[in-house]
Amino acid sequence: MSDESKKYATVHYNNYLGLDQLLSAQKLKSAELDAEPAHDEMLFIIVHQAYELWFKQIIHELESVLDLFRKKRVHPRSLGTAIARLERVIEIQKLLINQIRIMETMTPLDFLDFRNYLFPASGFQSYQFRMVENLLGLENEHRITYNGRPYDEVFDQKKKEKLQDVVDATSLFEAVEDWLERTPFLKFGDFEFLEAYRDAVNRMLEKEQKAIKESGYLNEQEKEIRLQMLGGTDTYFQSVLDKSSHQKRLQNGELRLSYEATIAALFINLYRDEPILHLPFKLLVTLIEIDEALTTWRYRHAQMVMRMIGNKIGTGGSSGHAYLRKTAETHHIFKDLHGISTLLIPRSELPDLPEALKEQLDFNFKHQ
Amino acid sequence: MSDESKKYATVHYNNYLGLDQLLSAQKLKSAELDAEPAHDEMLFIIVHQAYELWFKQIIHELESVLDLFRKKRVHPRSLGTAIARLERVIEIQKLLINQIRIMETMTPLDFLDFRNYLFPASGFQSYQFRMVENLLGLENEHRITYNGRPYDEVFDQKKKEKLQDVVDATSLFEAVEDWLERTPFLKFGDFEFLEAYRDAVNRMLEKEQKAIKESGYLNEQEKEIRLQMLGGTDTYFQSVLDKSSHQKRLQNGELRLSYEATIAALFINLYRDEPILHLPFKLLVTLIEIDEALTTWRYRHAQMVMRMIGNKIGTGGSSGHAYLRKTAETHHIFKDLHGISTLLIPRSELPDLPEALKEQLDFNFKHQ
Amino acid sequence: MSDESKKYATVHYNNYLGLDQLLSAQKLKSAELDAEPAHDEMLFIIVHQAYELWFKQIIHELESVLDLFRKKRVHPRSLGTAIARLERVIEIQKLLINQIRIMETMTPLDFLDFRNYLFPASGFQSYQFRMVENLLGLENEHRITYNGRPYDEVFDQKKKEKLQDVVDATSLFEAVEDWLERTPFLKFGDFEFLEAYRDAVNRMLEKEQKAIKESGYLNEQEKEIRLQMLGGTDTYFQSVLDKSSHQKRLQNGELRLSYEATIAALFINLYRDEPILHLPFKLLVTLIEIDEALTTWRYRHAQMVMRMIGNKIGTGGSSGHAYLRKTAETHHIFKDLHGISTLLIPRSELPDLPEALKEQLDFNFKHQ
Amino acid sequence: MSDESKKYATVHYNNYLGLDQLLSAQKLKSAELDAEPAHDEMLFIIVHQAYELWFKQIIHELESVLDLFRKKRVHPRSLGTAIARLERVIEIQKLLINQIRIMETMTPLDFLDFRNYLFPASGFQSYQFRMVENLLGLENEHRITYNGRPYDEVFDQKKKEKLQDVVDATSLFEAVEDWLERTPFLKFGDFEFLEAYRDAVNRMLEKEQKAIKESGYLNEQEKEIRLQMLGGTDTYFQSVLDKSSHQKRLQNGELRLSYEATIAALFINLYRDEPILHLPFKLLVTLIEIDEALTTWRYRHAQMVMRMIGNKIGTGGSSGHAYLRKTAETHHIFKDLHGISTLLIPRSELPDLPEALKEQLDFNFKHQ
Repeated sequence: MSDESKKYATVHYNNYLGLDQLLSAQKLKSAELDAEPAHDEMLFIIVHQAYELWFKQIIHELESVLDLFRKKRVHPRSLGTAIARLERVIEIQKLLINQIRIMETMTPLDFLDFRNYLFPASGFQSYQFRMVENLLGLENEHRITYNGRPYDEVFDQKKKEKLQDVVDATSLFEAVEDWLERTPFLKFGDFEFLEAYRDAVNRMLEKEQKAIKESGYLNEQEKEIRLQMLGGTDTYFQSVLDKSSHQKRLQNGELRLSYEATIAALFINLYRDEPILHLPFKLLVTLIEIDEALTTWRYRHAQMVMRMIGNKIGTGGSSGHAYLRKTAETHHIFKDLHGISTLLIPRSELPDLPEALKEQLDFNFKHQ
Repeated sequence: MSDESKKYATVHYNNYLGLDQLLSAQKLKSAELDAEPAHDEMLFIIVHQAYELWFKQIIHELESVLDLFRKKRVHPRSLGTAIARLERVIEIQKLLINQIRIMETMTPLDFLDFRNYLFPASGFQSYQFRMVENLLGLENEHRITYNGRPYDEVFDQKKKEKLQDVVDATSLFEAVEDWLERTPFLKFGDFEFLEAYRDAVNRMLEKEQKAIKESGYLNEQEKEIRLQMLGGTDTYFQSVLDKSSHQKRLQNGELRLSYEATIAALFINLYRDEPILHLPFKLLVTLIEIDEALTTWRYRHAQMVMRMIGNKIGTGGSSGHAYLRKTAETHHIFKDLHGISTLLIPRSELPDLPEALKEQLDFNFKHQ
Repeated sequence: MSDESKKYATVHYNNYLGLDQLLSAQKLKSAELDAEPAHDEMLFIIVHQAYELWFKQIIHELESVLDLFRKKRVHPRSLGTAIARLERVIEIQKLLINQIRIMETMTPLDFLDFRNYLFPASGFQSYQFRMVENLLGLENEHRITYNGRPYDEVFDQKKKEKLQDVVDATSLFEAVEDWLERTPFLKFGDFEFLEAYRDAVNRMLEKEQKAIKESGYLNEQEKEIRLQMLGGTDTYFQSVLDKSSHQKRLQNGELRLSYEATIAALFINLYRDEPILHLPFKLLVTLIEIDEALTTWRYRHAQMVMRMIGNKIGTGGSSGHAYLRKTAETHHIFKDLHGISTLLIPRSELPDLPEALKEQLDFNFKHQ
Repeated sequence: MSDESKKYATVHYNNYLGLDQLLSAQKLKSAELDAEPAHDEMLFIIVHQAYELWFKQIIHELESVLDLFRKKRVHPRSLGTAIARLERVIEIQKLLINQIRIMETMTPLDFLDFRNYLFPASGFQSYQFRMVENLLGLENEHRITYNGRPYDEVFDQKKKEKLQDVVDATSLFEAVEDWLERTPFLKFGDFEFLEAYRDAVNRMLEKEQKAIKESGYLNEQEKEIRLQMLGGTDTYFQSVLDKSSHQKRLQNGELRLSYEATIAALFINLYRDEPILHLPFKLLVTLIEIDEALTTWRYRHAQMVMRMIGNKIGTGGSSGHAYLRKTAETHHIFKDLHGISTLLIPRSELPDLPEALKEQLDFNFKHQ
């Protein structure tokens, strides 16, 4: 029979899902080494296996999104697909965070029944998790390592190479940065977004500063705080109004996103209601949420480790929850997108876009 | 080297968790049959595999709880363990309910890319799910079947037998019923709980009926409703005050829990604050929550199927969401425990337990 | 000082949020009527107050969305706003569903400490909840009533009128139906969507039927089920290919959405990747999710009532959970949008849109 | 009519819940100061009001638990009640964490429409939140303040005093510490728990160290890490085996829980399966979970603030998310209970309790 005909064959749930293979992959060390298996080791294994299944799905989504983004031009059609897939990643991440509650039903005393047998296995050895980090764009030099050892020394040569290949290729961070830099509407005829924004910021600052200083409702101390809240061209707005200031912060590691990409992200945030900017804005939001969910997971993971082993050293030899806590603090990838909020000004102060540009940002179809 | 020495060997995360086996079990039909794999088939497979992993864990917990409950006497120590494991089952169920949201990130149109290849695979063919139902105590005669076919015809002989073995053995429902029937405190010296309860109910009804009838605040219609709310020995309290009424309802399938077990469950609910009754009360609550979570999962599952295929027939040949919706209505296992609420009376109306009995229900240790 | 200057006044958290007012609105009946207040009555009040706060927010969102939709033309800019607000409603609904777990921390016995004082107060008397139902578009004639009494008899004249005003005005269901009916792309030059879809369905049915019948992998029974799954112009596709069939189902209450709106919704589902259809598709998805969340809340609410009072009659005089269970079954508003899934055909079978139409559905701006 | 008769009066949902009062407490500043109200200010107000309602409930629960714990002896009956109420607090906390997602549906740009009007209102001015912290036992000297100002300077004199009264009274931390210190079973006849534990630790360390050093499976580096994992009397176990070491860590602020209370908590953790210790163990777990949930809420709150205002200064004048982030790190209250995990040893190494003691820890009632 031809291949086409196979489409009309039958399939059983059990075989389709590879359940014999899947459900025979739980091998308890305590069953092998002790007279009686430790009841909770099954949970320990299944929780981790569930994590790894979902990591596989996340990698599947991230790789497909990267394929779409590595194109020279990202078609709006692809953008919709990319966002839907990243939103799926976020739904999965929410599940992974909740899953920690299941692990926490194991008490520290129950863990001790088999913990010693796991040495030196540890989450450090999760190849897929490192892959997720690399696909998103965590940089090697920003990784917190323990004992100064390279993060990938726990993997075999082939896996090391595959991890490095992903580092060498375009990460999601870089792909989005490139795509932002290509945003075409920042100059349009006479209109220069950056100039218009600069003017608006100055106008707003001047007006607000005056009103605050003259306010009969505020005492001196309050005025001062209110002015700080408002900020100025030498604080909040400096790094976008002055490229060299941005470059300096890039160099010292405070920022990571290029100047051009930052301006474009600002533009998208401010004019997100224009039809063509709707999806780009949504994309930036999903990236922020992925970042938030990832660090929340790290934070909850750190809590769980603290609860399980206290201040003991982990099976992987790390200082346990301190390491995880630190990664929750610093292993941000898209934090510059969060930072855009610093640069926003109220809609009422926004310069209007020229009509001809608005036309370009709208759909072809016109209602009569 | 001896076996003992193996406890001091090393283990790698990847091997410990059987990841090569686990992560090679995703075989997309669309990858086999089409020029290009359907992107979302990976999600479809992984969602179902995650369900099956968790089903394995639930079975692991239920079997261990049954082992504890099949003993002639359930030690309080075991009761604590049983409850902790059932609470873990509830945490897992919450995750399974949330997991439906992940499946819902797949749109109906994306499902159509590979749906046809799955025939006649379906959740009907999940052996582990049937096992969970049987361990809890779903009765064959209460199962909703489709087309009048036995639920187990989709399994091979060995699996059929194992499912039937579990049906033939003591289910959790039966084990709890037995354990309730053995509750020793219902008669203690002169004290007979059922008599004391009957008196209290009558006293309360009389007092309340009088007050309602005489109330100057209520009109006639309101009085009538208020009296219905209160109930009487011929309504809410009938089946517990009159054994033959309970038996009749057992026979016609309205009730399932034996008369003696029902009385004991009532006693535990009313006097749950006595130290020895604390854990038994907690156990009854966990069973109610497992039941609630299971039917909620069925309900959400039905919603998801409706959303995915509308009114189409499922790959397993069933009428899709209608079947699931019906199971959410009727496949309750511990609903008689919910029903205990009908029998409760306010704490202020409760007969005091004799001091000697309270002593028995307390700890040996006495504060001086 | 001028009004403008007031913008630079100061405000305190406590006053801004009206906390003195808010936090003095918890008046326990048991504190008034008993020697000692019932501890859990506070929870009972606060849970319901939290519900009412969120209902206010949901009404705020729905009204603003209706304002946008009552316009003759819904600008894409408004569509983005409407979707964002409906997605917020969904987030709130998720919270409301989870909130039931908090209520469930009150045991039935604790509820009895004050339940009698609440007569005949009940959720039936929640004006805001009825408002939400009416704004969404629940029809009076589809309401399950108890004892055949009108749902609004528990409200004063002014509230009755406001509820009826909303019924008489355009509901969200009707506004979306109107908007769908105005979808302009279904005929474009020579292209008629319905014709193209009909051809595609027939082509697909013919091809698939042939392949199934000739398959060497399937036995006769399997072929039959497989053909049922596939459906035909006399089953799944009938009501869209044959307008009179749709009309009949409208009349007998099986369907509610007009024929034209249904065709448009189908078009949007099938060609959702075209830029101009992205937001309309998203809108339909949010409506489905609001409906799902609302019925899930009803279902969970029914469970909670069963757990709390068993089979007793509710303080409002209804048969308690049975009523709620029934509304979870039937008080769907957007179920015809779920039903669109029945009409979908695989993307591979979809007729291509004419290039000139695709051009219209795209953005003005063109990449060079 | 007498007071008793009032129990048979009627009550309406609307009045019972004070809805006129509750639902008129949303006063938008933008409605007062602008031509058009900012749509999202309603959300901002309602989210915060919902928080305050729940804070009131949490305070209600904590105060009632403190009443139970301030007694000279905590009856097991009260312990059950206390735990149930603390578990309710945890359920509420979970809701509060999820509620952040609702706030995050407001975009930074929408916030700017009214943010300026809120100065200098801020969460710093939430009296109830400070009350929660004080009831739990957050110490003034451990509070992170901003600009070195006392945390309570934003409140009026009466509120300041009430906050200080709670600080001066017994907090939950102190009440639990007292209760732990009174644990009566640590010495029983010849049995001294601390001695038995010390012997068990030494026995275990010796056996394990030997086995690790002699293992043929481990290289030198692995042996070293494995020994670190195991710990010794000079590391993990030091502060409990050597009281002066514990005292030193109390003084330098590393620890807060007294030596005696720590030993008792360790005993409860190790022998939690004994009937009388079941509830005490449960209590310790709920305290850990309350702490976890509180810091998770702080962490998520910090993320949300970062997302909303970036690096700007908050309306309260603080450095926004940095402050919150820091409190998530350091405002732990029950972290010494987490730390108990450091002291646990495997069940297989545990010294058996004398039979006479086990008898005391069991119920009076004996099965024949």
